[in-house]
Amino acid sequence: MPKVTFNPYSITVEVVEGANLIRAAMDAGVHVNASCGGEGACGKCRVVVEEGEVEAEGAESIGEDDWNVGYRLACRSRVVGDVTVRVPSESLLDRKTLMRRREGIALRPSPIDLQSLKQIGLYNPAFQKRFVKLHRPTAGDNLCDLGRLEKALAKQHDIHHITLDFHLTRKLARVMRENNFEITATLDFSRRRYRFPHLLNVEPGDTTGRHFAFAVDIGTTTVWVQLIDIAGGEIIGTAADYNEQINYGDDIIARIIYSQSERGLSRLQGAVAATVNHLMQRLLKRFALNKEDISHITLAGNTTMTHLFYGIEPKNIRLSPYVPAVCNVPLARARDMNLDMPPHVFMNCVSSVSSFVGGDIVAGVIASGIYKDPRLTLYIDIGTNGEIVIGNKQWLTCTACSAGPAFEGGGIQCGMRATSGAIERVSINPETFEPMILTIDMSKPKGVCGSGLINLIAALSGAGLLEANGKFREDCGTERIRMGENGREYALVYAKESHTGRDIAISETDIDNLMRAKAALFAGYVTLIESVGLTLQDIEQVILAGGFGNFINIEDAVAIGLLPDLPRSRFQFVGNGSLRGATLLALSRDLLEEERRVAGMMTNFDLSSTPGYMDRYVAALFLPHTELDYFPSVRERLRNNGSNGRGEAVQKKA
Amino acid sequence: MPKVTFNPYSITVEVVEGANLIRAAMDAGVHVNASCGGEGACGKCRVVVEEGEVEAEGAESIGEDDWNVGYRLACRSRVVGDVTVRVPSESLLDRKTLMRRREGIALRPSPIDLQSLKQIGLYNPAFQKRFVKLHRPTAGDNLCDLGRLEKALAKQHDIHHITLDFHLTRKLARVMRENNFEITATLDFSRRRYRFPHLLNVEPGDTTGRHFAFAVDIGTTTVWVQLIDIAGGEIIGTAADYNEQINYGDDIIARIIYSQSERGLSRLQGAVAATVNHLMQRLLKRFALNKEDISHITLAGNTTMTHLFYGIEPKNIRLSPYVPAVCNVPLARARDMNLDMPPHVFMNCVSSVSSFVGGDIVAGVIASGIYKDPRLTLYIDIGTNGEIVIGNKQWLTCTACSAGPAFEGGGIQCGMRATSGAIERVSINPETFEPMILTIDMSKPKGVCGSGLINLIAALSGAGLLEANGKFREDCGTERIRMGENGREYALVYAKESHTGRDIAISETDIDNLMRAKAALFAGYVTLIESVGLTLQDIEQVILAGGFGNFINIEDAVAIGLLPDLPRSRFQFVGNGSLRGATLLALSRDLLEEERRVAGMMTNFDLSSTPGYMDRYVAALFLPHTELDYFPSVRERLRNNGSNGRGEAVQKKA
Repeated sequence: MPKVTFNPYSITVEVVEGANLIRAAMDAGVHVNASCGGEGACGKCRVVVEEGEVEAEGAESIGEDDWNVGYRLACRSRVVGDVTVRVPSESLLDRKTLMRRREGIALRPSPIDLQSLKQIGLYNPAFQKRFVKLHRPTAGDNLCDLGRLEKALAKQHDIHHITLDFHLTRKLARVMRENNFEITATLDFSRRRYRFPHLLNVEPGDTTGRHFAFAVDIGTTTVWVQLIDIAGGEIIGTAADYNEQINYGDDIIARIIYSQSERGLSRLQGAVAATVNHLMQRLLKRFALNKEDISHITLAGNTTMTHLFYGIEPKNIRLSPYVPAVCNVPLARARDMNLDMPPHVFMNCVSSVSSFVGGDIVAGVIASGIYKDPRLTLYIDIGTNGEIVIGNKQWLTCTACSAGPAFEGGGIQCGMRATSGAIERVSINPETFEPMILTIDMSKPKGVCGSGLINLIAALSGAGLLEANGKFREDCGTERIRMGENGREYALVYAKESHTGRDIAISETDIDNLMRAKAALFAGYVTLIESVGLTLQDIEQVILAGGFGNFINIEDAVAIGLLPDLPRSRFQFVGNGSLRGATLLALSRDLLEEERRVAGMMTNFDLSSTPGYMDRYVAALFLPHTELDYFPSVRERLRNNGSNGRGEAVQKKA
Repeated sequence: MPKVTFNPYSITVEVVEGANLIRAAMDAGVHVNASCGGEGACGKCRVVVEEGEVEAEGAESIGEDDWNVGYRLACRSRVVGDVTVRVPSESLLDRKTLMRRREGIALRPSPIDLQSLKQIGLYNPAFQKRFVKLHRPTAGDNLCDLGRLEKALAKQHDIHHITLDFHLTRKLARVMRENNFEITATLDFSRRRYRFPHLLNVEPGDTTGRHFAFAVDIGTTTVWVQLIDIAGGEIIGTAADYNEQINYGDDIIARIIYSQSERGLSRLQGAVAATVNHLMQRLLKRFALNKEDISHITLAGNTTMTHLFYGIEPKNIRLSPYVPAVCNVPLARARDMNLDMPPHVFMNCVSSVSSFVGGDIVAGVIASGIYKDPRLTLYIDIGTNGEIVIGNKQWLTCTACSAGPAFEGGGIQCGMRATSGAIERVSINPETFEPMILTIDMSKPKGVCGSGLINLIAALSGAGLLEANGKFREDCGTERIRMGENGREYALVYAKESHTGRDIAISETDIDNLMRAKAALFAGYVTLIESVGLTLQDIEQVILAGGFGNFINIEDAVAIGLLPDLPRSRFQFVGNGSLRGATLLALSRDLLEEERRVAGMMTNFDLSSTPGYMDRYVAALFLPHTELDYFPSVRERLRNNGSNGRGEAVQKKA
């Protein structure tokens, strides 16, 4: 991998070939002013190539002379080999700020490793196809078609006492005769309780090589669908889109309320089914597959999303004492859920634990392997609700914190979802207080997504602009801090460089919302761990889940008091744990059996009735926390920066 | 019971109070001329009351003087106490003809004896209701609704590891809260293979006292529905109607052919579903029940009817080698079969054995208890196909003979179904050759139904009008035998007394059809019994089934060679064995388990490929048979009547 060295800091990082230079700088913790998100419009991210070469586009802001002596726009440059660049003096930072180098940045989930699944004997899909050659009936052997198939399955595959789905009786005779009495049977071996495999489909000829399944993660905001080649043992494609239910309300509570209106429930069911249909079709089209090739669907979602998908009234979820109707949804025909699938396609649903710890979390626990790991693990899924699981292979506790939608951009003036134009990374020059921002696709910025907000708060705090109580320092010496419509704010992007033509700013109100969210989460896991007589330091592994977690900067998240201040090597990222879990369940009957057991062993805590939670929540309404003992590395840095680290304003030298 | 003595024969019979006098005469084997079917129009059935009284209506044909000396019309008289009547000389018969006294006439099926079912421990319905009081959820106990129910079922009823039907998940929460968390659960305990009871329904409050089920017999011609009170253990009502599929063809073959036309199968499915719906509604209305009170439906029918009811293509049933698609239809939701039932209602279907031995026969075997009887039994269901079962508790063989629809009135010019106006009983005066006929509701005759045809052939033969080869004797000395449109015929009813205004006659062609039918049946059971190395005389019990069997006259049926000539005490009648079996299966889980075992132990014979069948068939194309050794009692009578009993014409003395 090419190495990029940033001077004058002599910081060297390895990047993938073709990496964007300004991203490399961000990764290296090197601040380069950039206010257009990476689009190349602001012309501020000028660097000089000192050794080696980059593949760069020209820019208006770089004249021919400058070009000839090596000036390039970092955001328009791609790394093609070892290279040394100098960040010009106007961008130069106090070296001290560089200590915030991001170790956590490389946390990306490893792909599902099918090879090792196979090695440990867990690659055994519950739904399997078997090719069967039947004897053609004769006068002396005129068993009914079903009897003939049963006999052949017993003889050729040692499969006995099958049960079958009614719809098959209507096509069995035709299918058997379509290809000379050679057929492929699809059987469900998952129902351990039933003891006997369930015949789900028959197809003419040998189709054992064409066997696909879908895994579906139904999020409140986003729906993910993954196409799995069961025969080949591969994940072949993934698609995601907004849950169409968004039209009926942003969060779970709004959806539950809407579900109680006339035809509300069926509209919500139809909306999410439409989203899933559309994603399944997209994948089938992309890989030139037929829906007949699908054998089943495994679905995971939070408890409310699961209720809504299955058309089950969710209203008691939000009424004390918060009782879901069903945590273990029985096998259901996909078609009955308005999915455009043939009648043989059934849906498995990952079990929920309680109203607020759903199948998405159970799937994540399966996907991350906590339930069989001896190490004490903290599993955090940060979304509208922050769901937390703590435990190991012997015990698991879980809870949900009403973190609110702040980390998903909700209730934050400049907040937005992590889509095109969202500022996902922010750095602030501690000398000039000028920002460096990158947007998701390096287009003009529209707003700030969750991971960007964490960056932003950490950067504001790190640059000494924010007090520990979340208020802007008086008299900072930058015009970017000013009085806005909602009180004091920091102007991150000025109107002329924003996509909307309006300033993008973050106010104290926004910051307050974010602090409440992170405080709820922190108080949640501290309460959980302390209620079982352990401390944060006992946690041997922290697993982050959720689409959001994908881009979270561990250092920043610790700095603001969202994540626990543990050795960074203990952090892992599982990606979309829910989707990953659903996919694994489609690939492994043994995991499918584990799933209910795991859901059953997860003890649910209701934080609102757990002593000490509120106190812990209030104590956490600081950056990073009123009690700095929880954040030794942050305290250390604050000391280095000259702060007394007791929740008072960070003292800026400048 | 009142006694009726018929003079001059001094024949005394017991009859039920209120019995019709002409029926009593028919039962007693006393011929009284009667050609209007019992309507009172012909005025021929005059009798004189010698002792006692009858309750009689006046009639034009009886003047005041005659009335005063005791003349009455037998068909208009009801027996109200012991009475002696004299049959006038014009109706007087040779005493010899009286030996044909009908022992078999009293063969009526005993009602299903629930008390003895209970005594032998077989009264254990597979579908059961359980009242459950649930704890109201609290913050400390907020299990999901389903989990709460599972826990309560385990604790209060020792029912564990239930599975549940998906549709319940959508109503569980509401139902639980409707009546203070007191609910009634309906569970299916029938699936032995599944090991665990299946939850089918939940209702608010205690509904254990309201638990009903339907048993359905789908015949090619008639559909029967029986309403069963599962909670009370009673059969509470029965309804029957023509199978609406009749509009698409009279017999199975016509239906199968129609099913292959465009939308044919779905039309046929819809037609029979409409019939069942209409019968179920009629019963629900009659007993003021709600369809929500029904827990399940048990269905029996022949293999083709079963295929058509379930919308399964039946075409291979009629193509060599005659393979049904499915003999064991899995549990299916009634609503999916277009039955107007709530979603919790599922259907059990009695297993078929082969294309031509269906669930109706298996149900009959269950209903008649052959499968657990040590006695060698011959079970005959006479319909379009004559199905035959021979065996005992250790082995069972079965077959179907293509008897054709003759006994159901098909292919017989004067034939009709057993409905209003059908001549069901016939006697012919061996001196005058005048007929005595009774119609089903004693209204003007329209035609002759199956049991009437058997009577008629036996009567024609017994009166010496028919040769053993089924041809009318030359020179009989009665104008009733004449040349008709279809060759020689016997005029049973003249136009002026018939409902249609046309003569009702039976031709040699008709008789030929009936002989083919009876020969097919006789050859069938003889082939079956002889192929296992036994003889007819080894049969210890003969069970007759079918709506037709209800009125069959054993003596006549033996006389024409349809039934075996065995001691009459060995004959029993099970009634509609199919419906009776379906009802028993609804009442007994144990029988439900037996059902598949019994179907599995029934070895199917294909007569067309069984050596000797055709020879036996040809030999049986005589009245009663070319080989009179098969019919010792008939031979005896023929000898008494002066016949040589070798298939030659019965010699009449007159």
